[in-house]
Amino acid sequence: MDKTAKIRLYVDAELGAGQPVAVTKDQAHYLFGVMRLKTGAMVALFNGRDGEWQAEVIVANKRNAVLECRSQSKPLQMPPDLWLLFAPIKKARTDFIVEKAAEMGAARICPVVTDYTQSERMRQDRLQAHAVEAAEQCGGTYVPEVADLTRLDKMLENWPQDRHLLFCDETRVGEPATDLAALPRGPWAILIGPEGGFSPDEVDFLRGLDFAHSISLGPRILRADTAAVAALALWQRALGDWV
Amino acid sequence: MDKTAKIRLYVDAELGAGQPVAVTKDQAHYLFGVMRLKTGAMVALFNGRDGEWQAEVIVANKRNAVLECRSQSKPLQMPPDLWLLFAPIKKARTDFIVEKAAEMGAARICPVVTDYTQSERMRQDRLQAHAVEAAEQCGGTYVPEVADLTRLDKMLENWPQDRHLLFCDETRVGEPATDLAALPRGPWAILIGPEGGFSPDEVDFLRGLDFAHSISLGPRILRADTAAVAALALWQRALGDWV
Repeated sequence: MDKTAKIRLYVDAELGAGQPVAVTKDQAHYLFGVMRLKTGAMVALFNGRDGEWQAEVIVANKRNAVLECRSQSKPLQMPPDLWLLFAPIKKARTDFIVEKAAEMGAARICPVVTDYTQSERMRQDRLQAHAVEAAEQCGGTYVPEVADLTRLDKMLENWPQDRHLLFCDETRVGEPATDLAALPRGPWAILIGPEGGFSPDEVDFLRGLDFAHSISLGPRILRADTAAVAALALWQRALGDWV
Repeated sequence: MDKTAKIRLYVDAELGAGQPVAVTKDQAHYLFGVMRLKTGAMVALFNGRDGEWQAEVIVANKRNAVLECRSQSKPLQMPPDLWLLFAPIKKARTDFIVEKAAEMGAARICPVVTDYTQSERMRQDRLQAHAVEAAEQCGGTYVPEVADLTRLDKMLENWPQDRHLLFCDETRVGEPATDLAALPRGPWAILIGPEGGFSPDEVDFLRGLDFAHSISLGPRILRADTAAVAALALWQRALGDWV
């Protein structure tokens, strides 16, 4: 009988050999109501700190579920120190950006309000839940934090001086491509503008920042969600953990 | 008064100075019912062959709409000769792949059935409509053709011998990265597997093809839609029209 866990769950609890773990009501419903797991079944657990553990179902009860960690199946693998800053767009596409950022290995996801941002409402808890789900799905052992919505100008005023910023400058099409692999190593952030891009003031301001570098994403206008994945791919390949 | 067109439409008709253009019933409804354009308003038209033209509304009638081309606003810009092959997945994510492929500048979109393909139903006409909409949105002057669903093995049997194939090999994580910029120029295709990846037989077969090259997309398991955008970005940057 194959006892390797097919199901991966994010939990808050500490994980370690013999450690008992309680799951939330929703997770218990999923495990025992939807997936019909029985006592003895294995589930993979991760908490963003202790790697991935194979845990056995000890009490399979929707109200009082207990699993017990058996062995570590993956060590903690931190993503590179990369933030994704993006302006919230329509709900489905914002959800999508968060999902993709988690899959693509962003360490922190920061929604920012820019001059042309249309939507200034977002629910941090819902977006964080999307990041958790994406981490469960993609086999990661880390869940990126979704920060609260912040104004871009405020964020840049308090910018950590050792963190480089990559922004996608639509006016750079046709100029020679930045050699991404030649950019400095260290902490980075990628900034994706909203539909309509950055305002002329923002472009001037960004170009004047000594920690900011611009790239072009080609001659077609990409939607913000496409641009986010594309920029993350180029960065991971040149400076991140895609070897 | 700003007479530059905000609306872009794909049409079948020939475009050229003074050319009258009829639009479809749906387009007429959109232009005159939804957007409330009047006679004299400008609309940008493209047909995938003649570039983009600014056209003036001559008859603004939902049943009998006529526009007339005034001047060319963009020349035809063909994308690189790149096909995207992908295995259809859930409806929304398949739609998404087609939209992204058009934005990212694939010239042809080929849904293929692989060993682990779950969904073997797709409506070519609906996917083609998504490609048109993405082209309208992204400012492109070309619409990639969505081919009919084909079995991957049949397609590879009849493969054009000058076309290189890039496939994403999940087992290559940790190996040194392929230097994409050093790959040969010319016609290419990118192949994205379904959820669950390629079968071991397929991986063996693909590795044995002399026109096939593999890349890794990092240590996390990407969904097929994410992998499509990521691979297109890396290819466009190294071998395509993103300079």
